[in-house]
Amino acid sequence: MNYKIVSYILGTALKLEAIALLIPTIIAACYGEDSWWALLITAGIAAVLGFVLGNKKFKEGRYYAREGYAATALAWIILPTVGCIPFILSGTIPNFVDALFETASGFTTTGSSVLTEIEHLGKGLIFWRSFIHWLGGMGILVFILAILPLSGGFHMHLMKAESPGPNVSKLVPKVKETAKVLYLIYAAMTVLCILTLLISGMDLFDAVCIGVGTAGTGGFSIRNSGMADYSVVSQACITVWMILFGVNFNVYYFIIRKRFKEAVCCEEARFYLIAIVLMTAAITLNVYFNNYREEGLFTAFHNSFFMVGSLITSTGFGTVDTNTWPLFSKVLMILCMTMGACAGSTGGGFKVSRIMLLLKEAKKEFLLLTHPNAVKTVKFEGKAIEHGTMRSLTNYLIIYILIFIVSIVVLSFDKINFLEAFSATLATINNIGPGFGIVGTFGNYSSLSVVSKIMLTFNMIAGRLELLPILMLFYPKTWAKHY
Amino acid sequence: MNYKIVSYILGTALKLEAIALLIPTIIAACYGEDSWWALLITAGIAAVLGFVLGNKKFKEGRYYAREGYAATALAWIILPTVGCIPFILSGTIPNFVDALFETASGFTTTGSSVLTEIEHLGKGLIFWRSFIHWLGGMGILVFILAILPLSGGFHMHLMKAESPGPNVSKLVPKVKETAKVLYLIYAAMTVLCILTLLISGMDLFDAVCIGVGTAGTGGFSIRNSGMADYSVVSQACITVWMILFGVNFNVYYFIIRKRFKEAVCCEEARFYLIAIVLMTAAITLNVYFNNYREEGLFTAFHNSFFMVGSLITSTGFGTVDTNTWPLFSKVLMILCMTMGACAGSTGGGFKVSRIMLLLKEAKKEFLLLTHPNAVKTVKFEGKAIEHGTMRSLTNYLIIYILIFIVSIVVLSFDKINFLEAFSATLATINNIGPGFGIVGTFGNYSSLSVVSKIMLTFNMIAGRLELLPILMLFYPKTWAKHY
Repeated sequence: MNYKIVSYILGTALKLEAIALLIPTIIAACYGEDSWWALLITAGIAAVLGFVLGNKKFKEGRYYAREGYAATALAWIILPTVGCIPFILSGTIPNFVDALFETASGFTTTGSSVLTEIEHLGKGLIFWRSFIHWLGGMGILVFILAILPLSGGFHMHLMKAESPGPNVSKLVPKVKETAKVLYLIYAAMTVLCILTLLISGMDLFDAVCIGVGTAGTGGFSIRNSGMADYSVVSQACITVWMILFGVNFNVYYFIIRKRFKEAVCCEEARFYLIAIVLMTAAITLNVYFNNYREEGLFTAFHNSFFMVGSLITSTGFGTVDTNTWPLFSKVLMILCMTMGACAGSTGGGFKVSRIMLLLKEAKKEFLLLTHPNAVKTVKFEGKAIEHGTMRSLTNYLIIYILIFIVSIVVLSFDKINFLEAFSATLATINNIGPGFGIVGTFGNYSSLSVVSKIMLTFNMIAGRLELLPILMLFYPKTWAKHY
Repeated sequence: MNYKIVSYILGTALKLEAIALLIPTIIAACYGEDSWWALLITAGIAAVLGFVLGNKKFKEGRYYAREGYAATALAWIILPTVGCIPFILSGTIPNFVDALFETASGFTTTGSSVLTEIEHLGKGLIFWRSFIHWLGGMGILVFILAILPLSGGFHMHLMKAESPGPNVSKLVPKVKETAKVLYLIYAAMTVLCILTLLISGMDLFDAVCIGVGTAGTGGFSIRNSGMADYSVVSQACITVWMILFGVNFNVYYFIIRKRFKEAVCCEEARFYLIAIVLMTAAITLNVYFNNYREEGLFTAFHNSFFMVGSLITSTGFGTVDTNTWPLFSKVLMILCMTMGACAGSTGGGFKVSRIMLLLKEAKKEFLLLTHPNAVKTVKFEGKAIEHGTMRSLTNYLIIYILIFIVSIVVLSFDKINFLEAFSATLATINNIGPGFGIVGTFGNYSSLSVVSKIMLTFNMIAGRLELLPILMLFYPKTWAKHY
């Protein structure tokens, strides 16, 4: 382990967090809220820590995956730990475990909340809570990559550790340029999203907060009533933008470059959109006949479309209480939650491309049984899938199931039922936010025990980094000085 | 597809079923029950069908996996379809779907029942219901292998299709001899089991029925009260025998051959026994403090040990209503149900060896991340695991999850909750029997809809044959005349 480069990356991440904290500080000050000093002190702490850690000189050289993984995992632990200080100092979330849960939920774009009362936070803290969705959405280290001069090999390890999906595709030959392009598309789309919300009739503060939350597919609402109070037009806008931010960003790159054919040929995006259409249709019919006979088919469709968009992209906004929906709709929603959005998007979950690869691999097995001598390679997006990718995917699945099991066992000590334990685990490991029952759309995680909250916080960070980086921290050989 | 050899195998299986049906016919006649003629007519139907199908001459030659898989899958559909006729003819289970569910549950050693009232079946039908557990336990085609002269290649395909576990280990060089040895051990252990139950105080009829049900790790009880009325000693005997029948039969072969060192070195059996000890300890403590404070620690231990043994071996006998146990115990029981027993035993489930292989593979991934150039092979039972075995295992996991999802979606239309849909799926696909809630230890599957029952019947057969053979029936290329 080369500690110096890890320390340098952590320092840079903290310096960026210090700068980011200045925005809510200004907002709080403008609105005359007391929380401005809590935010400013935290910015100071982040800056000091950033300079101490980032001061290390490191040699250019050959770095291995483990430095990249360790730096990423540690950054995703330190940033929420520092980022939760304003909530503690301001007294709005006095308990450390709760504050860390809320902030990790923000950075990882989960959107699970321990707050029963949101509006008393004040505008400054509400903005910070939503803004960290945006910071975490595309990835903090991806941003660092876009601005820092680092040697090529290490770039790729950081990108791999933080970017979602079974493998990282470089849009342009250089990783640094790829990171820049991604962030430019992300920023431009966020601005467009906020503008659309303004036009739909939201006021500026709401539009900005909900806009950055939608862009990062986060899911924190900023009102006690969730998203229920916004107009149908605003809700529909949010649905469309959630779905757009769940598409693989490669598609947007191709569109900008006018390579429309490649954009349309993206297998993953097509599968994702077809899944949304089918799921919405099935849930619409199911809830129409069970819940919305009086309100009519449009209301059933509107709410189903919103929930499918919200859950498949792992955003987690809610307009209605889905606890009253029938089990069939709940099971389909659990499937949306499990699958998640496209790789290379801001959405979480298992990822569409992983599901597709697994399905293709299973199909191959049938072919081999009937045609034992056939030579068949699994192709995805027109390219043959390497053996290593398939093996990593299998291991991802194994580790995913293992963490899932451990989490349900830990949660089972709490006073909840099986669906609640199951959906809370799924909602955090896939960075969605709400589950069902007491942790449902209009419920929250406040009543859970400290142990459960720590487990779920772990799930959120492990899920956002796609398991391996965070687990490597527990593997003693990661810390060995020599290889 | 070579239809002739498939037809020949099916005919032989039906002839065996006709012979097997004579035993309950005699029992029913001795007890003076009316059901003897229903059983005799069915024996006649099976015999006629057997001679029609088994009459085909087939050429010796090279057969592929698909013939073996198709023959196995079809046999496992035809045998319950014929085997359920006595229940319909005698009027005890007049509905075809219910009777098929019950009989498939018997053959696949699941033990899920649609009966609310068992004892009115009469001794003849009760024996038939338990006896098919024994027939299905070690495998009907494995028995055919032991008696039929078939060419070598086809032997292995049949063995692979029916035997549980990630790969088939031949005890002796010839498949035919391996099948014989397995059946001899199975029969001897069954006799010992029945003797032990007699000594423990059970009457003869109960001891024989429960004995063959335990040997096949089936789970049909023969009294309305389940196993609750038997003495603690009898229950303890059953627990021990269930666990013994869940051990890989290779271990017993080694013991018979006095190769004690190899017997002790069986990784899978050790993992399985350790899991039983740990699960029993955890559940004992949990239920002692929540349910059995007054009854005492021994009662808590006795019931926990029985349930762990019953669920991990996929038997599914029940002495107590586990619906009142806390969620932590339920989650641990779900884990037992998921893991299942050893490969090469009569137990069902995902199999201990598959879990071990997946864990070892995941561990390898960590090593490769920290030591990118290390060459590491996964070893199991002292042998390096082939790439093909690992790939099949991955696909097994994928297909397993897929069927699981489809089943929960289908069941979600029924009037049940998530835990009931989840545990009913798990209980049938892993051939266990009871789940939780209305399908719990003292509940049954009678209230489910016809569609749910058909889905669960499919799960039972697909689970018993470990998914691939039954799914291949739906794959058009399986039926192609040429390769």
